[in-house]
Amino acid sequence: MYIETMVQFKKQLGQLDKWLVTASEYAKSRNFDPAVFLTLRLAPDQFPLTRQVQIACDTVKLAVAYLTGKPAQPQEDTETTIEQLQARIGSIISLLDGLTAADFEGAAKRVVSQPRWKGEWMTGEDYFIQHAVPNFYFHLTTAYAILRHNGVVIGKRDYLGAQTKRPPAA
Amino acid sequence: MYIETMVQFKKQLGQLDKWLVTASEYAKSRNFDPAVFLTLRLAPDQFPLTRQVQIACDTVKLAVAYLTGKPAQPQEDTETTIEQLQARIGSIISLLDGLTAADFEGAAKRVVSQPRWKGEWMTGEDYFIQHAVPNFYFHLTTAYAILRHNGVVIGKRDYLGAQTKRPPAA
Repeated sequence: MYIETMVQFKKQLGQLDKWLVTASEYAKSRNFDPAVFLTLRLAPDQFPLTRQVQIACDTVKLAVAYLTGKPAQPQEDTETTIEQLQARIGSIISLLDGLTAADFEGAAKRVVSQPRWKGEWMTGEDYFIQHAVPNFYFHLTTAYAILRHNGVVIGKRDYLGAQTKRPPAA
Repeated sequence: MYIETMVQFKKQLGQLDKWLVTASEYAKSRNFDPAVFLTLRLAPDQFPLTRQVQIACDTVKLAVAYLTGKPAQPQEDTETTIEQLQARIGSIISLLDGLTAADFEGAAKRVVSQPRWKGEWMTGEDYFIQHAVPNFYFHLTTAYAILRHNGVVIGKRDYLGAQTKRPPAA
């Protein structure tokens, strides 16, 4: 289910890109700088939109690295415009476009660890289900919530995007 | 990965229960009725906390029904207190406690449909990855965001909960 979930992440990142376009158009219609959205947050000690988008992107990038063994390309967190955030999202979509099911062979049993875990580790499967998936959706939904809370007209269908429905049986 | 994800959903519902306890204690410390939280929302045309919790619960309940073939038990949406919302969450945790991997045999290939889809359908796998998982985390994170936005002191660790770390190699 790894590659299928990565395809889903790609779709969700495409939806995130669309929300940013809608936010940008909304800002222009109300005569304020679209970049204002990047600084907004839901609580004073919660990350602003820019960081939510960066972490959503990094969560996918690191999951790909941990689960395929292909090293993650470092990226600087320097985005200050909606267009730059869109480019960051686009870089992750491109990364996902280059993957196939074969890249995730053995992913469930990989050893995942981080320096701050002091030698402790998680299996690839535990890491994926307990960290990567909930973390990705957390930052994606928080980005959505920041925009929604600040007047951008997006709804649940914009969150989920198109679903693979099959035609009725003949 | 169905049963493993259901175990993860169970953990997340347990975390949601804890956030509600923290919210209730916060309300009492500030001398307001904890039930006020149930009516709060991030945007005037977005669902309030009560509905976010109900939909998070229903998403899991329906996913279990669609993927195992066991019919979902109807529940009325009548909660007006935090304790009642906790009971609703508890009912889903109990449901998940009664499931094993065997219940999800063949889940990926099940036919999932709803009356309003007019005969269209999704495979169990597509439904799970494209609807159940993103929808559950959406409403869970929105519930978190409503509480966080309104002063409840919860953080990212409270969202993710404990993760299955393994001890360092000897």
